This record gives sequence, C-alpha cells and structure tokens, in this order.
Amino acid sequence: MSNFSDALAENAEAVTQVLGHFLVVDDETPEKSLTEAMRYVVLAGGKRIRPFLVTASAGLFNVSESSALRTAAAVEMVHCYSLVHDDLPAMDNDELRRGQPTCHIKYDEATAILAGDALLTKAFEILANPATHPDPKVRCELIEELAKAVGEEGMVGGQILDLLSKQRTLDKPEVTRLQRMKTGELIAVSCEAGAILGKAPEAVRHALRAYAHDLGLAFQIVDDLLDVEGNETDVGKKTGKDKAAGKATFVSLLGIEHARERAEMLAEQAARHLEIFEEKADPLRNLAQFVVERRS
Amino acid sequence: MSNFSDALAENAEAVTQVLGHFLVVDDETPEKSLTEAMRYVVLAGGKRIRPFLVTASAGLFNVSESSALRTAAAVEMVHCYSLVHDDLPAMDNDELRRGQPTCHIKYDEATAILAGDALLTKAFEILANPATHPDPKVRCELIEELAKAVGEEGMVGGQILDLLSKQRTLDKPEVTRLQRMKTGELIAVSCEAGAILGKAPEAVRHALRAYAHDLGLAFQIVDDLLDVEGNETDVGKKTGKDKAAGKATFVSLLGIEHARERAEMLAEQAARHLEIFEEKADPLRNLAQFVVERRS
Repeated sequence: MSNFSDALAENAEAVTQVLGHFLVVDDETPEKSLTEAMRYVVLAGGKRIRPFLVTASAGLFNVSESSALRTAAAVEMVHCYSLVHDDLPAMDNDELRRGQPTCHIKYDEATAILAGDALLTKAFEILANPATHPDPKVRCELIEELAKAVGEEGMVGGQILDLLSKQRTLDKPEVTRLQRMKTGELIAVSCEAGAILGKAPEAVRHALRAYAHDLGLAFQIVDDLLDVEGNETDVGKKTGKDKAAGKATFVSLLGIEHARERAEMLAEQAARHLEIFEEKADPLRNLAQFVVERRS
Repeated sequence: MSNFSDALAENAEAVTQVLGHFLVVDDETPEKSLTEAMRYVVLAGGKRIRPFLVTASAGLFNVSESSALRTAAAVEMVHCYSLVHDDLPAMDNDELRRGQPTCHIKYDEATAILAGDALLTKAFEILANPATHPDPKVRCELIEELAKAVGEEGMVGGQILDLLSKQRTLDKPEVTRLQRMKTGELIAVSCEAGAILGKAPEAVRHALRAYAHDLGLAFQIVDDLLDVEGNETDVGKKTGKDKAAGKATFVSLLGIEHARERAEMLAEQAARHLEIFEEKADPLRNLAQFVVERRS
C-alpha cells in the first residue's frame, strides 16, 4: 500500500494547492479574519479522501485535471464546513480536530459559524463557475446532487439524527441510516461527481454509487473502531467519545471483532462493483483497502 | 400606497406557498424536527421584500411566473438562513424575530444552526434544478451571483464586520461598506435575478444594480431609524439595540433628521435608474417609496 499512500498524499497536495488558491486573505480589509479562519480549516490537512474519490472517479472518464481538482476542492470545502459546525459547543463541543484546536477554539464561535457558512457558499460558487466544466448542464447537475447529499435529507439531517442519538439508543437500522445520511451521501456524491463530469451513462453511475455506498459504511465502521481502539495522538481528535456520550455505534451494536469483519467485507464488496472499469479503477480499489487498514 | 401594499402582500402569499411546498415534513422520520424548524423560520411571515424584487424585476422581461417564484423562494431561504444564524447567542443573541421567538429559542441552538445550513443548501438545490429555468447557463449564473452576494465578500463578510463594529466605532465609509456587504448585496442580486432569468443585456442589468444599490442603502437607513424610533411591538424585534451595543449606524453618524432625508433622497435616486423601463417598472418605483415610508 505504500505506493497508494504516495498517490493519496500527492492528490491531497494538489487539492490543498487549489483550496489555498481559492481563499486569498486581503490584508487591507477588516473582515480578513473570516478568510483566515476559512484557510485555517481547509488547509489543516486531513487525508482528503473525498477529493481523492472525485479525482479517481473523474480519472475513469477522461475528465480534465482542472475540472476534477476544482470539483474536488468544492467537495472538500463542504466537508470542512460540516466539521466546523459539528465541532461547535452547541453540537459535539469538540476542541481538537486533526491534532489542532477546532475553529471556534482558535478563533471564536461566531467566526466558526460564519466560516462554515462561507465555505459552503464558496463551494457552490466554484461549481457554478464556467471554469469547472464547459457544459453548464454538468455544473448544475453537480450542484443539485451535492446539495441533495448534504442538505436536510443527507448530511445535515444525519447530524440531527446524531444529536438525537445522545438522547436514546438507536438500533442497527437506525444507525445505518444515520451514517448513510451523515457521511455516506457526501462520499457517494464525491464518487459520482467524476461520472457527472465525464457525462457517464446511468449504468456506470450506478456502479459507482454502489461502490461508494459500501465504502462509506466501511469507512464509518472503521471510524467507530478508531474511536474505541485508537489513541488521541494518532487519530488527531478526542477518542472514546461515543461511549462517553452513550451513543450506539456499529462497534457497540456488533462488538469489535464483528465490526472489523463487517468493514473488511464491505470493502471487498465495494471493490467488486468496480469490475466494469477493469484496471482503470485500481485507485478506487486501493482506496477501499486503505480505508479499512488505516490507523487514523 | 394601499394598492402597493396589496401587491406586496399578494406576492408574499404566492412566495410563501412555494416555500411551504419545498419543505414537507415527513412524520415518519426522526429528523423531522429539522424540517419543522426550517418551516418555522421561512413561514413566519415578513414583508418578503427580496422575493418581491425578484418577481418585479422578472416582470420586466417576460419571465415565467414559475421561474420567478422558485428563484424568489430560493432568495428568501437564503435571507432566512442569515437571520437564523445572526440571531444565535454567539452572534447577536436575539430572542425575538418578526414578533416570534427566534429559531434557537423555539427549538435549540444545534437545530437553529442546522436549519440555517439546510436552508442555504436547499436554495442552491432549487436554483440548480431544471424547473427553475430551461437554460442551465442561466441557472449557473443565478447560483454564482447569489453565492458571491452572500459569501465571504458579501453577506457573511458583512456580518463579521458587524460583529467587529461592537469592538470599535466605525466611520461613515466603513458603515456604508458594512451595510453594502451585509444587506446590500443580497438586495442587489434579488433585483438582478430577474434580469438574469430574462437574459437581459448588460446595460439593463447595470440599471437594475444601480437601483438596488440605492434602494439597499435607503432600506438600511430606515432600519436604523426604526431601531431608534420604532417600538418593539410594531417592529417585531427588539429595538434600541444599536445604541445599547455602542454600534455606529447611519443614525448615530448623521442624526435622525439627516438620516431620514438621506433615505428619501436615495429612494428618489433609486427610482431614477428605472427610467429606461418606463411604466413597467412601477412596482419597483412603488417599492422604493414603500421602503422609506414603512413603520416596521
């Protein structure tokens, strides 16, 4: 997997450069703290798995590098906005993220709320701009699918469920649904974005969605495992949180061993949906393996 | 002006219906509280001035009613999201809005943050959908212009400036810039939206922007006057806030009398930009007059 780690890091570096390019601090303006906070959040690193999904799926369809990277950056901005808002005191009240103080700790709550709002807005601005794809129909489709994935029926709805899960213990179908909404939909649309950019036929999009669906669940189960088994320094955020909050997770529902087996099974299943792409989909296959083997 | 008040109320009713149609509570789902909060916020009333600007400007260019109303609803969702986030304890900490408890008082802070996020997201979803306009280039332009108007260089940046204004007294150019960003840009894009939907030439768009620019400033000055002169029951929100917060406003900088004169002058100036549209622009002229005469 060391070649794959290099590929992931290389893509992360390219996406980070594009992100930095979109967020330029104007020292002359008093509101520059907002752009600084936005940069703090998106340039803090992270594995950039969603951007990798965008560029790897775009790589199946001869999409231009610039289209893929702009779309990847927009998706990452949306992911980062969700982290900033989820970390707020009124939500998960987290003080550590990727080994650094969270946005509202580094700046303040108001700035964190507004930096999240501005990142979400910027993502749609980037996608709507002609530089992202020459065909405006493609740009509209990206925007509509992304908005559905992260709105009330997707990520934001999932976060409401997650907050409710602190009040009562969810069962397995409910936890599955929560995770599909909270993390699965954005992972799915990241993967589908390449197919949208490449104007791929529906059958092909379906295969990518199926891959992403299994991958997303595997990813989440490993997240739950890391919360139990990982240590704070490696994972870069507070661990043991789910148990402390009394939250049902795949680990509390299945046990550690079965949860790990299930994640591995899902990763294999994910890879099987990629057969139609032959070896062109190797980056996506490697990602599925990476997701279950990761230690942070 | 009574005919105009009727026209404003009729348009508000049509927009409210469309807003309600976009936000359907699914009683079967545990996350329904999110949609309920979104409905609470957007159906709470208000004068719907921004949606009126969209439909009145669309009326200059033979735009279909459905295109205009969908765009108006999207703009109003963005306006409502901004109110919900601005009212949060970490921001302006307001408990009353349009005579009702603010979203975080009625629900809770987490729900208010997420309802705002979901409204912003939904607005872009609506604009990207083919039902809003048959030409995807038009839809992308609406999205890009709206995103610019409400992002870091527009509304969100303006809110950061507004928070900074509690720390030090701004001078007149700074207050003007703050208001242009915080409220002016969304008013301008509401007005320009009709021209975008109608594929109007640049000279015409320019005239509408100039109208909206003056209108937005007049609107804000009257807001500042109502904060000083109005009573809470009429205005529907807490008054006397600016002075209590030590914030510089047009009223504190110009005095009540000069502020009112300035608002009236701006409204007249706004109307003068509409000459090229002849009597077709009467609704926009009436709005300019209404904005300075309003008592809430």
